[in-house]
Amino acid sequence: MKLVELMIPLNAHGAKPMYEQIYQYIKGEIRQGSLREGVRLPSTRTLAENLKVSRSTTQMAYDQLMAEGYIEALPNRGYFVLRMEELLEAETELQGAFIQESEKSEGGAEIDFSPRGIDLTHFPYNTWRKVTRNTLVEDNKEMFLTGSPQGEPALREAIRGYLHSARGVSCQAEQIIVGAGNEYLLMLLSQILGHGRAIAMENPTYKQAYRVLESLGCRMAPVKMDSFGMEVQALEATGADVAYVMPSHQYPTGIVMPVTRRQELLQWAGRKKNRYLIEDDYDSEFRYRGRPIPALQGLDKTGKVIYMGTFSKSIAPAIRMGYLVLPNPLLSVYQKKLGFYACTVSRIDQNILYQFLTEGYYERHLNRMRAIYKGKHDCLLGQLRGLEEDFEIRGEYAGLHILLTSKKGRSEEWLIQEAEKRGVKVYGLSSHCIHGLRDSGPSTVMLGYAKLSEEQIEEGVRRLCEAWIAKY
Amino acid sequence: MKLVELMIPLNAHGAKPMYEQIYQYIKGEIRQGSLREGVRLPSTRTLAENLKVSRSTTQMAYDQLMAEGYIEALPNRGYFVLRMEELLEAETELQGAFIQESEKSEGGAEIDFSPRGIDLTHFPYNTWRKVTRNTLVEDNKEMFLTGSPQGEPALREAIRGYLHSARGVSCQAEQIIVGAGNEYLLMLLSQILGHGRAIAMENPTYKQAYRVLESLGCRMAPVKMDSFGMEVQALEATGADVAYVMPSHQYPTGIVMPVTRRQELLQWAGRKKNRYLIEDDYDSEFRYRGRPIPALQGLDKTGKVIYMGTFSKSIAPAIRMGYLVLPNPLLSVYQKKLGFYACTVSRIDQNILYQFLTEGYYERHLNRMRAIYKGKHDCLLGQLRGLEEDFEIRGEYAGLHILLTSKKGRSEEWLIQEAEKRGVKVYGLSSHCIHGLRDSGPSTVMLGYAKLSEEQIEEGVRRLCEAWIAKY
Repeated sequence: MKLVELMIPLNAHGAKPMYEQIYQYIKGEIRQGSLREGVRLPSTRTLAENLKVSRSTTQMAYDQLMAEGYIEALPNRGYFVLRMEELLEAETELQGAFIQESEKSEGGAEIDFSPRGIDLTHFPYNTWRKVTRNTLVEDNKEMFLTGSPQGEPALREAIRGYLHSARGVSCQAEQIIVGAGNEYLLMLLSQILGHGRAIAMENPTYKQAYRVLESLGCRMAPVKMDSFGMEVQALEATGADVAYVMPSHQYPTGIVMPVTRRQELLQWAGRKKNRYLIEDDYDSEFRYRGRPIPALQGLDKTGKVIYMGTFSKSIAPAIRMGYLVLPNPLLSVYQKKLGFYACTVSRIDQNILYQFLTEGYYERHLNRMRAIYKGKHDCLLGQLRGLEEDFEIRGEYAGLHILLTSKKGRSEEWLIQEAEKRGVKVYGLSSHCIHGLRDSGPSTVMLGYAKLSEEQIEEGVRRLCEAWIAKY
Repeated sequence: MKLVELMIPLNAHGAKPMYEQIYQYIKGEIRQGSLREGVRLPSTRTLAENLKVSRSTTQMAYDQLMAEGYIEALPNRGYFVLRMEELLEAETELQGAFIQESEKSEGGAEIDFSPRGIDLTHFPYNTWRKVTRNTLVEDNKEMFLTGSPQGEPALREAIRGYLHSARGVSCQAEQIIVGAGNEYLLMLLSQILGHGRAIAMENPTYKQAYRVLESLGCRMAPVKMDSFGMEVQALEATGADVAYVMPSHQYPTGIVMPVTRRQELLQWAGRKKNRYLIEDDYDSEFRYRGRPIPALQGLDKTGKVIYMGTFSKSIAPAIRMGYLVLPNPLLSVYQKKLGFYACTVSRIDQNILYQFLTEGYYERHLNRMRAIYKGKHDCLLGQLRGLEEDFEIRGEYAGLHILLTSKKGRSEEWLIQEAEKRGVKVYGLSSHCIHGLRDSGPSTVMLGYAKLSEEQIEEGVRRLCEAWIAKY
């Protein structure tokens, strides 16, 4: 039995948590063959002592290695490296199971303009910890029991207040349903709307929602957009009675839907009893120019808009909290058909969020993030001046990404590949098109800036200029 | 404008949190008419100072009153009591929206033998707080990003280890899907199995699961039980290809399925390719006599069992964490069709649970709760000796409730009503029967003891004897 000593270079200030650095290192050693089958690893205790980390850190690294089939634990003997064939099997099984936002967006590129990233270096960890501490007190043991199916009444009231003042949404707290993320809320919604409904979506669109609705048995109808958003005539032609739109800041095009188009959509919805608009207001918190446009829901006087919001962008994706605001006719359907479903969000977490909202932390956090994102946004736009001759710059009013459309007839693939050669990742618009179809328009790439520092943005754009301009 | 002073009697050591006591008091005053329309309530700050509670406590009480439409907030003016008509409207709207476990189980009875309760007075608040504090550290900022769709690999490995040693479940971590509660997992499962499948369930059964599956469009087939559990011939006759069973401790009958019947069910499943058994192992942690019987999943060598587990009973319902263990053929379906769904459980909470499991806290907590529940269980059985002549006592080997079946031909209604007259709530078995049908058997009531103290159990049974025996 061979016992190895592991010398793992750790970076305590790196972006990756320590356990992941240990896990990555050992995994690399096994895959390269430096650690062979049957080799015994040091115990979690010994390794923790050697690396000066806590034992739960080494335990977590080993657990992940076991979960992925790289090592096994033998009772009273220790941890051993597994055979390579077993590894290959394990990897096949794991296909699709480990899509992590963090991994996806890294992908080897040095500067990743991921349009789905958010800035977590400014997350108010101390405040969150404080609020959590205040919530987990013995007086609150009630909080560990099942709560209200729609979510805690006090939290819903706080959300209602926020939506009213910040987004012009007009509703009662009892119209709000709190749920564990977009997918779950869409699952609920598809049951409320009834199985097999036809749902129209802007094309290009937020593919995740498209795939979820499709997997739920909805008949999906992609609808063309003009510069104002979804075309109402094209929508009418699909025969769909439900349309999913993102009026505040369409993903991925960045189009902010003007009031005239909003009213046309509401009129379309008003023409039949069973018609509804789903308004996905996923990142309306971030807006840099002009007056904020209130939500479509606020314009609607006839109960035609289903409003969806989330705290994934404005707080953090990991907290898994979103909500639906249902118009009254659909609220009745929900209460009759699904009112007995328990809420999917931990009551403790709901109370943490409630404190975060009502004690002013959320507003402060949003103001701070708006300033930070505006700084990055302005930095990016400033840097992009060098590209203005070759590209049209769009979507710069809101959200966390902008779009560059080639004026010189470059293909999307070429733009992406040339950037990649210089260690920069940009994202093609066509991957957001339903059925991979792309309107005749010129090729466009997306640049998200939320996760990058201003230095990275500057360096990234410098390399893009090199990649795309010097070639002429 | 009338401003009132509120003198609210608060009990800092009561079962209800302070905010709820304040909310209940003011609601009562409004409903009785002591606080009339237009009356201005003290500000949350003033009330907090007067009552010596934190401002977030009074804010929470007011928010709940607003959410339920008892009061309104006028900008820069304060909180005002609303009109009574508006109250009535609000109450109608709220129907069904505020079913809270806590409220349901109170229902006015002094001693409530709810079979769904759990003991939260012994919840390890300090440990949970400590683990939470350790999780919410800046090094872990990764944790605020989206995680793996099936749940954190390390947590799944910890669950696998627990299931293996405690329940004899044999699986890989990648077969486990962590999700936000039973309802969500059933939603996933119904998509994995395909829309409109026929699903057989024991009758009587856990009604919540029945209703969820029915609302998802499954065709439900109730199946008779004998003293061993679901009858296999009756199952065969339904034509259903999926059977939902609770072999460890059937809810509500308390039947522990013997190995012979388990094998018959596995044989039934083996006879067709598309047949599956759903094993709901909701409270197997608690067992008082005999050797623990391993899960049905552990007997299965052919990938026919879908295993469902939860931490609702063993930790707390509010944390909303459960999991599925999928056999490999269904895992492939899941990964192909639904592998892109984001996990519904907060990554932070998953990491808290991971620490709780791997640092030995869970085991310690379970051992403690087992001892506490066994104490209550033995106390109840001891007390019930006085009823032995009139009732058959069943389901006493496991779980958190027992059953009393009348030997003297008393009706269920009569038993419940006579108990109620003496402030004791017991639960009829017939409410768990599908279609309200009740097999010819004699009437049976359920007594849950998890939430009650031994004193309450003694007093409760004393009253039941008075109610049911003195009548002869």
